[in-house]
Amino acid sequence: MPTNQIADIADLAREDPSVIRLWIGEGDLPTPDFIRGAAEQAMQAGQTRYTYGHGLPALRRALADYHARHWGVAVDPGRFSVTAGGVQAMMQAFQAILEPGDEVIAPVPTWPNLGAIVRINHGRLVPVPFRVSDGRFSLELDDLVAAIGPRTRAIAINSPSNPTGWVMPREQMAELVRIARTRGLWILSDEVYGLFVDGDRPAPSFLEVAEPDDRLLVTNTFSKNWCMTGWRAGWVIFPDGMSRVFENLSQYNTTGVATFIQQAAISALNEGDPGVRALVARTMAARDVLLDALAGIPEITVVKPDGGFYLFFGVRGMNDAFSTAVRILREAGVGLAPGSAFGPGGSGYLRLCFAIDPALAAEAARRLDAFFAGTRQG
Amino acid sequence: MPTNQIADIADLAREDPSVIRLWIGEGDLPTPDFIRGAAEQAMQAGQTRYTYGHGLPALRRALADYHARHWGVAVDPGRFSVTAGGVQAMMQAFQAILEPGDEVIAPVPTWPNLGAIVRINHGRLVPVPFRVSDGRFSLELDDLVAAIGPRTRAIAINSPSNPTGWVMPREQMAELVRIARTRGLWILSDEVYGLFVDGDRPAPSFLEVAEPDDRLLVTNTFSKNWCMTGWRAGWVIFPDGMSRVFENLSQYNTTGVATFIQQAAISALNEGDPGVRALVARTMAARDVLLDALAGIPEITVVKPDGGFYLFFGVRGMNDAFSTAVRILREAGVGLAPGSAFGPGGSGYLRLCFAIDPALAAEAARRLDAFFAGTRQG
Repeated sequence: MPTNQIADIADLAREDPSVIRLWIGEGDLPTPDFIRGAAEQAMQAGQTRYTYGHGLPALRRALADYHARHWGVAVDPGRFSVTAGGVQAMMQAFQAILEPGDEVIAPVPTWPNLGAIVRINHGRLVPVPFRVSDGRFSLELDDLVAAIGPRTRAIAINSPSNPTGWVMPREQMAELVRIARTRGLWILSDEVYGLFVDGDRPAPSFLEVAEPDDRLLVTNTFSKNWCMTGWRAGWVIFPDGMSRVFENLSQYNTTGVATFIQQAAISALNEGDPGVRALVARTMAARDVLLDALAGIPEITVVKPDGGFYLFFGVRGMNDAFSTAVRILREAGVGLAPGSAFGPGGSGYLRLCFAIDPALAAEAARRLDAFFAGTRQG
Repeated sequence: MPTNQIADIADLAREDPSVIRLWIGEGDLPTPDFIRGAAEQAMQAGQTRYTYGHGLPALRRALADYHARHWGVAVDPGRFSVTAGGVQAMMQAFQAILEPGDEVIAPVPTWPNLGAIVRINHGRLVPVPFRVSDGRFSLELDDLVAAIGPRTRAIAINSPSNPTGWVMPREQMAELVRIARTRGLWILSDEVYGLFVDGDRPAPSFLEVAEPDDRLLVTNTFSKNWCMTGWRAGWVIFPDGMSRVFENLSQYNTTGVATFIQQAAISALNEGDPGVRALVARTMAARDVLLDALAGIPEITVVKPDGGFYLFFGVRGMNDAFSTAVRILREAGVGLAPGSAFGPGGSGYLRLCFAIDPALAAEAARRLDAFFAGTRQG
């Protein structure tokens, strides 16, 4: 069983209020009141019993509306299943498609949970390194194609990417769908950061370029857009004709998600757009504060990410990202994730989550600046 | 992927208030107010973010206290992991121990989720029929031993048993622990109905007869004792030295359980004993009402279960339990689970959950009596 270096860092200082917590994909705000209120109301109404395993019909409708509103795609509500978070969406997706020994190709560095979930399902992650040029990550589809072998079952894409900030262009998505059709492969698309971009349009979604019967599984979560990390609610979108499979997987994994959490999720989707816009704007303002400051630290190489809410910055001369992250935590009071947690190609980097108050971002930047200044004198 | 006949029955009438719902392992009461209040308080205090994946330290302590109080066992709080329900506890347990092709021996009839979870993890359930005499189920350990083969990894026991009402005697548990040690096998013990028995002592637990380093995994849930079916919270107890494995499995399956749900669980454990006693007494009163009534229906063979909250009754001349359950649902307005859902040996039975108001039990009994009277005339 692989360890989780991010959880390891978090466990070192979970109860220490002086630490600025940028180690994990979580903002600094509690869940908005109207969402909590919806959960409380449902609880008080006695919605505390078993319900539809794969999600309340009203929630699946609200999810379809959400995708229509933001991406202009028409996805039948019957293609959604509600899960205990994005991670459980991914678990069910791989349970649905993997046989022991199957391979899953993924650009790396990537979220460590991906490889762990593939391994728990007795598959093997085949890492394909992003190309890197001047600190900027990009993907060559030819590199993915070269990794396809007889045991390849799926290609896993996370765009906007955690940790690299890369966003897959829509044309590349369309081309990958064509490749997957030809080769009989699944695409597993983790789109949890889709709204965290500059401008009025979200990051492209595979739903825009695929047909309802394509072998596409899209995973998502309520955690990021609506400050609901602790609620453990997400969703998976599957092709036409697979609803029975995902109803069963929901039954056998968690027997659904609490009804009062689903009611909160409905409120988030139906009433949450203005809040999400404000959250994204605040997040990007924090990003800009940090980008400015980190650009002035000579040891650091950093570029503006195309999407998501992470800076994945290189540190010159860093031998061991984990112990550097521990040092920065202890000496500077800033919690970062070591790049080595994200697999091959990550060991020269640290990951910083900027879904925070810009003022807190400024303080984190000051602390990082002082830390690196100290290493120069030491 | 196996279908779930119980969910299929429930889906036929989920929104029909005229149906008496005895199809599923769920009582008729909402969660007690003090438990809901604890969740609301935590939510209002902003406990809506990521937390310890395997459970709040206070919850793991409360779980250890609960087991000490009811079974007189000392289990280190570090051996508990909190899960999204009993079903997720079982999922993580099998993820921890199964390799593809491994076999799991289990007495049948049994809860269908067991076989499904084993299959999702690429294992194979090896059913060993209970002995049946005058409608009463019993287990011969020699039957289990005879089923052990080179690929056997575990023996799964559910006592009190869903659906049969069988309770494993403590001496038989001790003997099975000895057998498992000798053969290098795991015991997976699902003990969710442990408090649903007559008298002052709970049903025996494997924790009473095993050592902390025995290959024992115990799964449990908050659903039954505290009317929290919809909350999706449970726990798994693992041997010394496996906490890292279960921390990781928690991360990669659901990344924990909502903090506000964990706070509710703490209240349930620490303040819920009187309510559980009252619930068990009410449940057993409903059982007696139904036992009396069903004993008077000539087509039905029923015995008093030793534990749990199900009657698993034989129906003379029944060819197809599923279609009979559908007929009883449609014609009598009583939702039952078809025995065929519980695997080999179950097809001649129907399962009825009696965790209900005794008055509702009496109405259900009247409807069943009228239904069978009608079949005689028809």
